[in-house]
Amino acid sequence: MRTLAAILIATLTPLLAAAQPQQLPLMPMPSSVQQGSGRLPITPTFSVAVTGSHDSSLDREIARFKTQLSRQTGIPFRSKDSGTATLTVHADHGREAIQKLGEDESYNLTVTDSAAQLNAPTPLGIIHGLQTFLQLVQIGPPGFTVPAVTIKDEPRFPWRGTLIDVSRHFIPLDVLKRNVDGLAAVKMNVLHWHLSDDQGFRAESKVFPKLTGEGSEGHFYTQEEIRDFINYAHDRGIRVIPEFDMPGHSRSWFIGYPELSSGSGPYTLEGGGIDPTMDPTREETYKFLEKFIAEMAKLFPDAYFHIGGDEVDGKQWDANPKIQEFKRTHNLKNNQDLQAYFNERLQKIVAKNHKIMVGWDEILHPDLPKTIVVQSWRGQKSLAIAAQQGYQGLLSFGYYLDLMWPASRHYAVDPMSDAAAGLTPEQKKLILGGESCQWAEWVTPENIDSHIWPRNAVIAERLWSPANTIDAASMYTRLNAVSLDLQWLGLTHRTARTEMLERMVGGADVSALKVLADVVEPVKDYNRWDDSKGPIDFHAPLNRMIDAVYPESETARQFSALVDVFLKSGGKDQAAAAELRNWLTTWRDNDAKLRPLLDQSALLKEDIPLSQNLAMVGAAGLQAVIYLSKSEQEPELWHAQQTAVIDQAKKPVDGLLLPVAARIQQLVDAAAAAHK
Amino acid sequence: MRTLAAILIATLTPLLAAAQPQQLPLMPMPSSVQQGSGRLPITPTFSVAVTGSHDSSLDREIARFKTQLSRQTGIPFRSKDSGTATLTVHADHGREAIQKLGEDESYNLTVTDSAAQLNAPTPLGIIHGLQTFLQLVQIGPPGFTVPAVTIKDEPRFPWRGTLIDVSRHFIPLDVLKRNVDGLAAVKMNVLHWHLSDDQGFRAESKVFPKLTGEGSEGHFYTQEEIRDFINYAHDRGIRVIPEFDMPGHSRSWFIGYPELSSGSGPYTLEGGGIDPTMDPTREETYKFLEKFIAEMAKLFPDAYFHIGGDEVDGKQWDANPKIQEFKRTHNLKNNQDLQAYFNERLQKIVAKNHKIMVGWDEILHPDLPKTIVVQSWRGQKSLAIAAQQGYQGLLSFGYYLDLMWPASRHYAVDPMSDAAAGLTPEQKKLILGGESCQWAEWVTPENIDSHIWPRNAVIAERLWSPANTIDAASMYTRLNAVSLDLQWLGLTHRTARTEMLERMVGGADVSALKVLADVVEPVKDYNRWDDSKGPIDFHAPLNRMIDAVYPESETARQFSALVDVFLKSGGKDQAAAAELRNWLTTWRDNDAKLRPLLDQSALLKEDIPLSQNLAMVGAAGLQAVIYLSKSEQEPELWHAQQTAVIDQAKKPVDGLLLPVAARIQQLVDAAAAAHK
Repeated sequence: MRTLAAILIATLTPLLAAAQPQQLPLMPMPSSVQQGSGRLPITPTFSVAVTGSHDSSLDREIARFKTQLSRQTGIPFRSKDSGTATLTVHADHGREAIQKLGEDESYNLTVTDSAAQLNAPTPLGIIHGLQTFLQLVQIGPPGFTVPAVTIKDEPRFPWRGTLIDVSRHFIPLDVLKRNVDGLAAVKMNVLHWHLSDDQGFRAESKVFPKLTGEGSEGHFYTQEEIRDFINYAHDRGIRVIPEFDMPGHSRSWFIGYPELSSGSGPYTLEGGGIDPTMDPTREETYKFLEKFIAEMAKLFPDAYFHIGGDEVDGKQWDANPKIQEFKRTHNLKNNQDLQAYFNERLQKIVAKNHKIMVGWDEILHPDLPKTIVVQSWRGQKSLAIAAQQGYQGLLSFGYYLDLMWPASRHYAVDPMSDAAAGLTPEQKKLILGGESCQWAEWVTPENIDSHIWPRNAVIAERLWSPANTIDAASMYTRLNAVSLDLQWLGLTHRTARTEMLERMVGGADVSALKVLADVVEPVKDYNRWDDSKGPIDFHAPLNRMIDAVYPESETARQFSALVDVFLKSGGKDQAAAAELRNWLTTWRDNDAKLRPLLDQSALLKEDIPLSQNLAMVGAAGLQAVIYLSKSEQEPELWHAQQTAVIDQAKKPVDGLLLPVAARIQQLVDAAAAAHK
Repeated sequence: MRTLAAILIATLTPLLAAAQPQQLPLMPMPSSVQQGSGRLPITPTFSVAVTGSHDSSLDREIARFKTQLSRQTGIPFRSKDSGTATLTVHADHGREAIQKLGEDESYNLTVTDSAAQLNAPTPLGIIHGLQTFLQLVQIGPPGFTVPAVTIKDEPRFPWRGTLIDVSRHFIPLDVLKRNVDGLAAVKMNVLHWHLSDDQGFRAESKVFPKLTGEGSEGHFYTQEEIRDFINYAHDRGIRVIPEFDMPGHSRSWFIGYPELSSGSGPYTLEGGGIDPTMDPTREETYKFLEKFIAEMAKLFPDAYFHIGGDEVDGKQWDANPKIQEFKRTHNLKNNQDLQAYFNERLQKIVAKNHKIMVGWDEILHPDLPKTIVVQSWRGQKSLAIAAQQGYQGLLSFGYYLDLMWPASRHYAVDPMSDAAAGLTPEQKKLILGGESCQWAEWVTPENIDSHIWPRNAVIAERLWSPANTIDAASMYTRLNAVSLDLQWLGLTHRTARTEMLERMVGGADVSALKVLADVVEPVKDYNRWDDSKGPIDFHAPLNRMIDAVYPESETARQFSALVDVFLKSGGKDQAAAAELRNWLTTWRDNDAKLRPLLDQSALLKEDIPLSQNLAMVGAAGLQAVIYLSKSEQEPELWHAQQTAVIDQAKKPVDGLLLPVAARIQQLVDAAAAAHK
């Protein structure tokens, strides 16, 4: 009676472990790690001393560190340190009141069998070094210890962020806070807060109260909450960059202020499409933005201010005769020119408020000053073009967490690759880093953690670690370790799924449902969007299998590795064969156990074909392994029959894919080929 | 590849389900439930209307109810209700500013296939009725629904509480708050807050700041936090009764104020024993208590005030010549009389502050007025004696959650049974109800939820439901349902164990460890206390198996039911035999998988013999089932050998018991007897 995971451990430890170097479970991997000998014990008398610069922010950081160490180990530490310090922390300088882009974030951590020393030029380095220390703690025969090690570390890029969209689905502050803890744990330093979009305006304006009063359905952050959240993030070394998307993606503004729009209104939050767009031709629009941006610039202390600027479809502009007339009189050839006109005026307002404007690819236009920053959702080519023109850039293409890619695919995306690889050293300096993006069409407070984590950690590693840190096998091993560490922060990426599955079956035993959930993945890219069904209903429940399962199936990944071992051995590896048979038998037999539950739940009935598919590909794979192991001849037509079954199973059901199907096809192909 | 739970479901559904009546998953069971036909759908347009009395407290209650319904179903509801109400709520009156003992808590809930109506004389009934509604929500083929039903409900006892000790281990407010949510979910109405004891003083006094300043190690609640917590509980229909234990269990007072004690001091929080006791002979003691109780009486609005009064060992009194002299001059024959003298003076102070004094059994003394309430940790006999003398009483004997009893044993304890059964009707009215007790020697914020829940729900049922609600099988079925509901409140009773097990194995796969954890239970009563090791170290980590496992093994309980079915069939039930073999095989084989993990963790090495024992009793049971199923003859000496092995396995290892061992002995006995 073993779970899949148990089988995997049993199988893969001997089969695969030897191939991997013994690496410490660190993510992001530091610039330099030298392992020593011996181990520092973590005991109830563990204590921290501070030398050098010392302020209340550092005290809070150390208190959080000790709380976290206590959670990880279950050891309560005394609130007052006494005796010789186990860990001595030394920062040369104190914190800046407002965290700046490019502050020194480096640190040196030395651990011996009797003490640890963490040194950094700034408290930001201390924050990062303490996270490294936490990741080093391991349980073993002598108890909890940290291995002796010397680490020298600094980030590759100065801007390492995550965008969280709180407009499409509102995300409460407690959820955001634990995610900020997660960002700090993997040494990210920016939370890009996508505060407004068509579906909701989430930041309180006292000057224009109808923005949230009419445009948020009551789901917004007060200014007091925003200030508290910014302080919370600042304490953890995270800058908060607000984004107010304009002139497009701005329907929520128009519920309360329809006069800002290029169309006639009235507007509601429910509508579909991205047509509603600000009117860039009316002076009243700029008067509004003058006041609004002045208010927000005071509320958000960071030097950077994001104005969105993406995906203006121009339909409202084209349909408005006054706007067409304006374009003619101002010699604006097309809507791109009109948006550039808007951005130019917007940039002046932003600059007047002592902020640097950030926007998406579309804002790039020669009329704008070189101080702006371009965030690219389109690719390294956009970044390269901007850099060649002297603009700074951030990469988000390749880091969209909502596209449901495997961690390895995000991991392979480098801001400096492709078109950016050909830039001059001076131009390369203009690429500041990147941001992962959690767009919120399909997330709720319940499942957002599992969409962001643990995959976000590999993007954090891409942006922090040396460019040659690219081994995916090492990444996955370390990712599993860091995923557990993140759990101790209160993130629910490993626990919410079980609760959601339990909801679907009304409290019945979920083990058979977990077998299915473990091997499926949501469809990728934008394939969950189905235009034939009309616009997305942002009020619809997100409580089905597709909402609960992980973006990447760890079981499928490990099954895949096992298939590789087995096929490489020419079907001769009996241990691999036995484990494959175990899995495939489980999958073949699961539908019979699961069906009664699927029949009894409205949330699961669409998944009946999925469960059947798993049973069928399980049976196909099992037969293939038996043929291969025993060198038996498969019957005629067998290959064609199994291939038809597998082809069927490769099609999405209820938005879910069965990634093991393709690997089972390989087994079936191999079984057929062996006897040709 | 099935988990134990999956096997149980598969086995027991056909074997056992038929024996049980189809009951709604309600706990506590209402006084009257009449099932109707049809079902009320729960959809995104679900809405609540209020008729009758209406205040902000009711609005908050309904908002919480909708949040909870949304969590259970995953359906987001609009914050503003519109259209025809799905549920109409009607309270005749508003809330009392201070909740009183004996307020009407009854309610009537009627659900049809199109609407629901909840009526109650007071908002307390509405609070209870909404919890009943939440428990009725079920997933099925048409989606989430509530079955048509007519419920009339009221509590059996007016005082239904839980004591939480926050002195031995400090429990932060967020943990207390989610437990208050749990109390409300099972219709309890009192949180008895054990705020001081030898190990820590937890409530801020501004008059005597050294109480927490010296006596809490920084772990205490400020007065502002206390007020906030009381409001939180009040909103949920829960009275908060503070307990300041005196004259014994009071060492923490003496760290800052040694002059209060009967000994010489100085004192530290670390000491063992319960000797330190207040000096009842000095007037200064009463001057201190006058001021202290006046301050606390204002802080805690409830009419009742708990002064403890338990376990005065008298050693400091006997050793103090002045106190001996005082006893002689005041004609106090023994220490009981001296404590009564103290209590009499204390009672006057409490009464002067318009509070009713509550204390443990030991305060009962003819010199005290009949207004006091006696809380019995000793048994129904104490309650009966008190009632015969005209004192009101509460039962806690039998409801000590820290004794690790199975739910069924708590469930069988009735305040009106045993000695109380013989009371007159008038005397019986003096028994107000009872309180479960969570003493905190062995709990931390991490595992306290699993020590309280779900077992506390059966004590809640005992105190709320009609006296004839005593069927244990029905109780366990409903308990499993309510346990899941409680999870949606954020209680960690079902999730913390996995995280603790993961910590023990450093992130390795925990399935083999779960197999072991599923079948063990901590030792019962006070058998974890080991006087030979000296006093308990309240700063020691509580991060081992004994701290993580559940007080009652659900697997052992269900295995037990299966053994009953199998033996009743004379070994002929082949389905039961197959399932028993599955389990016993798993247990037999588990040690081989688990041993590498146990060897590698300091937190688990003591459990190696436990894992071996499970393997050995698994092997013994498996052989017995095979002999019985096949009517084979067991070899000579087999019975004696297996019995020796099982006897060994019955002994605690690292504080853990193997309750399946006794049932396996029955299998072995039956196998031997069958062939005599």
